[in-house]
Amino acid sequence: AAMANYVIAVHCGAGYHSRQKEEAYKTLCKSICLKVCHMLEKGSEAVECVTEAVKLLEDSKLTNAGRGSSLNIRGCVECDASIMEGKKLLFGAVGAISGVQNPIEVSAMLINRQLGEKLSLGRLHPSVLVGEGASQWAVANGIHKMDPRLLITDESQKTYNNHKRKLDSHNQKVSKKRKIDHQSDDKNEEIEDLQEDKDVVQDTVGAVVMDTRRNIASAVSSGGISLKQPGRLGPAAIYGAGCWAYNQRPGKPGVGTVTSGSGEHIIRTVLARECAMSIQRENNASLGLSQGFKQSLLESEFLSEEEEKYAGVLALVHNEDNTAEVLWGHTTDSMCVGYMSSSLKKPKVVMSRLPTGGIPGKSFTMLGMPV
Amino acid sequence: AAMANYVIAVHCGAGYHSRQKEEAYKTLCKSICLKVCHMLEKGSEAVECVTEAVKLLEDSKLTNAGRGSSLNIRGCVECDASIMEGKKLLFGAVGAISGVQNPIEVSAMLINRQLGEKLSLGRLHPSVLVGEGASQWAVANGIHKMDPRLLITDESQKTYNNHKRKLDSHNQKVSKKRKIDHQSDDKNEEIEDLQEDKDVVQDTVGAVVMDTRRNIASAVSSGGISLKQPGRLGPAAIYGAGCWAYNQRPGKPGVGTVTSGSGEHIIRTVLARECAMSIQRENNASLGLSQGFKQSLLESEFLSEEEEKYAGVLALVHNEDNTAEVLWGHTTDSMCVGYMSSSLKKPKVVMSRLPTGGIPGKSFTMLGMPV
Repeated sequence: AAMANYVIAVHCGAGYHSRQKEEAYKTLCKSICLKVCHMLEKGSEAVECVTEAVKLLEDSKLTNAGRGSSLNIRGCVECDASIMEGKKLLFGAVGAISGVQNPIEVSAMLINRQLGEKLSLGRLHPSVLVGEGASQWAVANGIHKMDPRLLITDESQKTYNNHKRKLDSHNQKVSKKRKIDHQSDDKNEEIEDLQEDKDVVQDTVGAVVMDTRRNIASAVSSGGISLKQPGRLGPAAIYGAGCWAYNQRPGKPGVGTVTSGSGEHIIRTVLARECAMSIQRENNASLGLSQGFKQSLLESEFLSEEEEKYAGVLALVHNEDNTAEVLWGHTTDSMCVGYMSSSLKKPKVVMSRLPTGGIPGKSFTMLGMPV
Repeated sequence: AAMANYVIAVHCGAGYHSRQKEEAYKTLCKSICLKVCHMLEKGSEAVECVTEAVKLLEDSKLTNAGRGSSLNIRGCVECDASIMEGKKLLFGAVGAISGVQNPIEVSAMLINRQLGEKLSLGRLHPSVLVGEGASQWAVANGIHKMDPRLLITDESQKTYNNHKRKLDSHNQKVSKKRKIDHQSDDKNEEIEDLQEDKDVVQDTVGAVVMDTRRNIASAVSSGGISLKQPGRLGPAAIYGAGCWAYNQRPGKPGVGTVTSGSGEHIIRTVLARECAMSIQRENNASLGLSQGFKQSLLESEFLSEEEEKYAGVLALVHNEDNTAEVLWGHTTDSMCVGYMSSSLKKPKVVMSRLPTGGIPGKSFTMLGMPV
């Protein structure tokens, strides 16, 4: 394969993508690849490029990140976002943040602070900021404060109303039943599942970039779970879970990974870090990613209680012979991926779906491409 | 060594402990060991026991956790605390939480929810809650709401006033100098260091327990860094960084670890998890912990920019021949550890200090004991 000068790969969430909206997802990924390629050609750095890519994903109403995020139990948007860069191996994250348009910009600012001057009096720059303190820090540092209601779309409000109605009706039934039975056993209660609204279940979005200086950065952003408890932190805010980046070093390929899927599964398996390390250990991108998926997720002793494990991983690998690969795998129904490099003529966009007969949460599909 | 039926190990922070207060720290560790042993003899479970141990550490004015925590830049207490349990490998954490007396109780509640009934409508119980959402969840679930001012002690207020004065005076000098120089270069500015107030620098506290059913749990709690940015998340709230627990399984010893020290260093090295895994990989407690310290911390490529690396680790190991060991290591000046088991007559308490000639942040001392 030709040596790539730069690579960008994005995805708009592992989950379920309806055939009906397939073109819209693909168009989004494609336009982001084109825009970021333009930046890379002009010499923009990896951190700046993944920030821009994720910003565009956040701004899209199609994704569960930034505007259009799933609403929490109180009907508000609260976001997680993080960036890792592979040169100095720095990490910046915000969690459960409200009132900013682009959470990923705050993460980028945290990384840039760490790259800049040290704090006075021997203090260290923070790597993770959460909640009200995170928004206040962002606004104090020049990020525009936004009316939180502007992050809610007609569709996210509709989904919230629908989910909330289901929950309230479920709770009413349970409390009625308890009154009749004089017991708190609701095991016979017919359990509805919010996941039934498949078309609205989208998870963390992400991007990975290798810039012309061969620096790798990765970034993720998420609105989290529908009806979540306010303050709930998801993998997109947690070190090693949502994203990982590591520049090529002697004896080790460079890797960037981003994850998406069931938050608690991804946190407990430290999935982005484990998949990246598996790729480096095997020194073979496809073998490494499939081993990582198998050992760290599907057969994980940390998830032995879980019947189904939902996750997707997008990886960019910079091999020692200077070739690069983009690869992805998922146990979810689908994952929409776009990528582009200096050696490709135009962006490639794939709506990756589990093959016929594949069981979501148990089967695994993977594809890798030289770029 | 005799087979231990149960083990408790606690520490009240890796950092700097003055000779003057040495007895007070030791008395604290000792009384906690005695109290928790009593619970263990009566059959209390590991999660309940580490929660009680850390609760007592939080309630002590001597530690930087709960009451008496370091104050953030606004003069408020904001705490991080987490628990991991080794049977189902569950994790519960709160971050940047205010207005509760014992943050560790909220983490325990998060674990207990995960151990209990599933949430309705296919939703998963959260493992990490932060900020205002965390306190609200705690209060909604029966935790007593506390006036945040009651967590401030005379001493923590005095330290805050002193640190804040230093910071304000530093900022004034810098801004004056900038006006004169018409430039933003403050490299020639004499840099004071808050760490100079050595006696008040204490980090995350923790406890590890193996109960009579051979279940292991670990717990940590911290008030974080003096003058920290509100919302800053430390390792005590981050999966794999602050604590790790894993029951003995075929071919693998059981391990519980808790960490303390420089937060950003512990987060980026995922130190509790890495040290526990090193002990399991080597299948030798002392070798495993020293290798973990060396490879994961002192020689870590994730900290290659850092001159000094401050951390302490306390570990409990349950070997396959059913013997147990308590061991600890630190690169900080000192670490105060207490432990007790069913085969010991009374609690052992050690103020562990770097040997003469040892350089804090660069040298490493370690001690292990069969229990």
